[in-house]
Amino acid sequence: MDAHNVTARLAEFLADSRWEDVPSPVRHEAVRSLLDWLGCALGGCRDDAVDRVLALLAEVSGPPAATVIGRGERLDILNAALVNAISSNILDFDDTHLRTVIHPTSPVASALLAFAEHRRTTGERFLHALVLGVEAECRIGNAISPGHYDRGWHITSTCGVFGAAAAIGKLLGLSPREMRWALGVAATQSAGLVEALGSMAKSLSVGAAARNGLLAALLAAKGFTGPERVIEGVRGFANVVGERPDFDAITTRLGAEWALAVNAHKPYPCGIVMHPVLDGCIDLHRGHSLPPERIRRIALTVNPLAVARTSRPDPRTRLDARLSLQHGAAVALVHGAAGIAQFTEASIQDPAVAVLRGKVDVREDPAVGRVEAIVAVHTTDGRILSTHVRHARGSVECPMTDVEIEAKFRELAAAGAPGCRADRIIALVRSLEAADDAAALARASVPTGVA
Amino acid sequence: MDAHNVTARLAEFLADSRWEDVPSPVRHEAVRSLLDWLGCALGGCRDDAVDRVLALLAEVSGPPAATVIGRGERLDILNAALVNAISSNILDFDDTHLRTVIHPTSPVASALLAFAEHRRTTGERFLHALVLGVEAECRIGNAISPGHYDRGWHITSTCGVFGAAAAIGKLLGLSPREMRWALGVAATQSAGLVEALGSMAKSLSVGAAARNGLLAALLAAKGFTGPERVIEGVRGFANVVGERPDFDAITTRLGAEWALAVNAHKPYPCGIVMHPVLDGCIDLHRGHSLPPERIRRIALTVNPLAVARTSRPDPRTRLDARLSLQHGAAVALVHGAAGIAQFTEASIQDPAVAVLRGKVDVREDPAVGRVEAIVAVHTTDGRILSTHVRHARGSVECPMTDVEIEAKFRELAAAGAPGCRADRIIALVRSLEAADDAAALARASVPTGVA
Repeated sequence: MDAHNVTARLAEFLADSRWEDVPSPVRHEAVRSLLDWLGCALGGCRDDAVDRVLALLAEVSGPPAATVIGRGERLDILNAALVNAISSNILDFDDTHLRTVIHPTSPVASALLAFAEHRRTTGERFLHALVLGVEAECRIGNAISPGHYDRGWHITSTCGVFGAAAAIGKLLGLSPREMRWALGVAATQSAGLVEALGSMAKSLSVGAAARNGLLAALLAAKGFTGPERVIEGVRGFANVVGERPDFDAITTRLGAEWALAVNAHKPYPCGIVMHPVLDGCIDLHRGHSLPPERIRRIALTVNPLAVARTSRPDPRTRLDARLSLQHGAAVALVHGAAGIAQFTEASIQDPAVAVLRGKVDVREDPAVGRVEAIVAVHTTDGRILSTHVRHARGSVECPMTDVEIEAKFRELAAAGAPGCRADRIIALVRSLEAADDAAALARASVPTGVA
Repeated sequence: MDAHNVTARLAEFLADSRWEDVPSPVRHEAVRSLLDWLGCALGGCRDDAVDRVLALLAEVSGPPAATVIGRGERLDILNAALVNAISSNILDFDDTHLRTVIHPTSPVASALLAFAEHRRTTGERFLHALVLGVEAECRIGNAISPGHYDRGWHITSTCGVFGAAAAIGKLLGLSPREMRWALGVAATQSAGLVEALGSMAKSLSVGAAARNGLLAALLAAKGFTGPERVIEGVRGFANVVGERPDFDAITTRLGAEWALAVNAHKPYPCGIVMHPVLDGCIDLHRGHSLPPERIRRIALTVNPLAVARTSRPDPRTRLDARLSLQHGAAVALVHGAAGIAQFTEASIQDPAVAVLRGKVDVREDPAVGRVEAIVAVHTTDGRILSTHVRHARGSVECPMTDVEIEAKFRELAAAGAPGCRADRIIALVRSLEAADDAAALARASVPTGVA
């Protein structure tokens, strides 16, 4: 396997890549991903977990060089990267590279924006570094999937650190050798356990990935050496944390196929296997007059995975609700929507929603795909209204449109950072490629009167 | 395995432990370990790797609350913990828990001293926390050894983060539940690869363990939650990074057997499997008049592991020399010593040493134990002078004496922090249990005129 020499090949690709080499649809997806990420960071920036981390970091942070997105505080760049990655991942609403289940943008963009506030970076260089960071983390993730996540590794964290290191390494103009060091220093900090899901610590390792990848690239630029074959070495990353690593996945069609080209965005802030059901319920709500008291029974036919992961008839917390098929179907039928407001404690306790949750029957059918669902609503007057969702919104077959991503951004911004200038942020992101200073994004994220 | 409930039992032990419960020999060993650790930190504090990390951290560090041992700089407590753990581990000269090969004191004491500068801590509480931190990391290490290190995990780093979290959690007075969170937040940051050995990154993960464990405990004290069964959970630490975890190793005889009671100290700054040969060569040098030009041949009979790991007839760098049986034997016979000065580039190039290296014959014998060696020197006048070392100095059977640890400390302090008041530091460590303020150690470590 040493013959693959994958660390060197990946490092050379990263160091040599030019913006002109990145195809136009990938560039466009970088802009979409950035906007979606920023929305998630705004939506999550007042979460309890963020408040507590900030309460601590306020005591130890260095020079206030970088902005906490959506808030007034400023931290040193390492700590800002940490906090912004937590904010953007805490709601489980950020983008997904489906093959690996990596949330690719959070660790990379969080490191990039903090760095850009410290050292002036054009929008083009920022987007290029984002594309490369995502490419590095997803390719390394591909090499160790699915065994790595299955074993219990929080792959967004364990691979995200490479993405952050690669992206910042690109902005620093690291040579291929220094880029290998950056990847090596990143690898020896790679961490994150699935066991942490369900606690505040869930997103801490994502934050650490952003901070540690940034640190790795900054150290490499100071001549701090790392192992040079850290991916493929006998005691290297892939052999230690991969079950049967596929090294070819890192180098095959490098520069020809791009991870961002298959990036997916979540329309709903809940388990992705629930999404086709929510689509169906929202469609029925829109197409028919269906007051909740007229609904007798809700019959869902779904893929077995959806049942295994999200059949929770009686959710008690927000976290439960986000993984409850019954709750999702109920709110979607009551409100014709399944956004942030529908997964709050208030929504869980809403009597109309609670009654409908009790009327949901879930049936699994292996013939139904993971992005597919059949929803049939039986009414008290004997009608059966049904719909068959073949490809959920947000799936590769049915990607969210730019307009939908923008609407999602606005909802998140309004929920987490009321008063922030959503129009201005959207305009900045859309025109970022031509911008002189990408850091304007960070400053614009703070609601007027807060800073 | 869930029945073990080991995370809860460990957390309760840590939270409930009293200094009176710690046996006197363990208390004494804590003092010895602390002195040895401080010497290693002084010896390593001007290493290139430390210089480069400091060059970066100077730009981003927060309030200058804690001292870089042996130097003038002051950093925020998280970054000071990081740097001091790097300094103390970079020379490969720090203490060893032989069953796991964890260097136990570095990640724990580095976090503790930085914290003690921030929040006044008595010497007794400091030593108690050190004992408990070492206990936590070594017991968790026992549960996953030897498979964990064999797979490629740098166990000092991966387990050190628990030690730092446990120690700081004790000083913060965390409840058992908060202590579980601290361990959980530590676990999801646990990282470090053996692949990094040979580069500056080697000690970065040890530094990160100190910083991240400190962060974990501080966060838990702010109510930041972590997974509650992080060691034994299905996707928890031991199952993810252990090959066949032995959970009993964590709880058996907890409070009755102590990891520090079997802590070992290195008399020589080189691979531990070389040590019996160095003992033999130094003994022969002392016992006989042996000018190098009178030596015709040096025949070593050693355990096969010593050959596999350290047969390097032609070392080129300091790192090579520290893993060269031939170099070690040569310098020990030329100088009657094998200290820091004997593993420098100058020593590698010394013609007398180079000639002797070429006269070393190494023979492996499985009947010879790992702490054993037979050294036979054949002279040009036909004599054979030989010695049989049964237990190397520093082994469990033949521990370094307090006087030897003190001499090692003085050598390290003089090499890495010339001008520092070694006498005063030794006196402070020896009297620490009665001290009001453990942080005096940190201030005393800075050579006069530097700060």
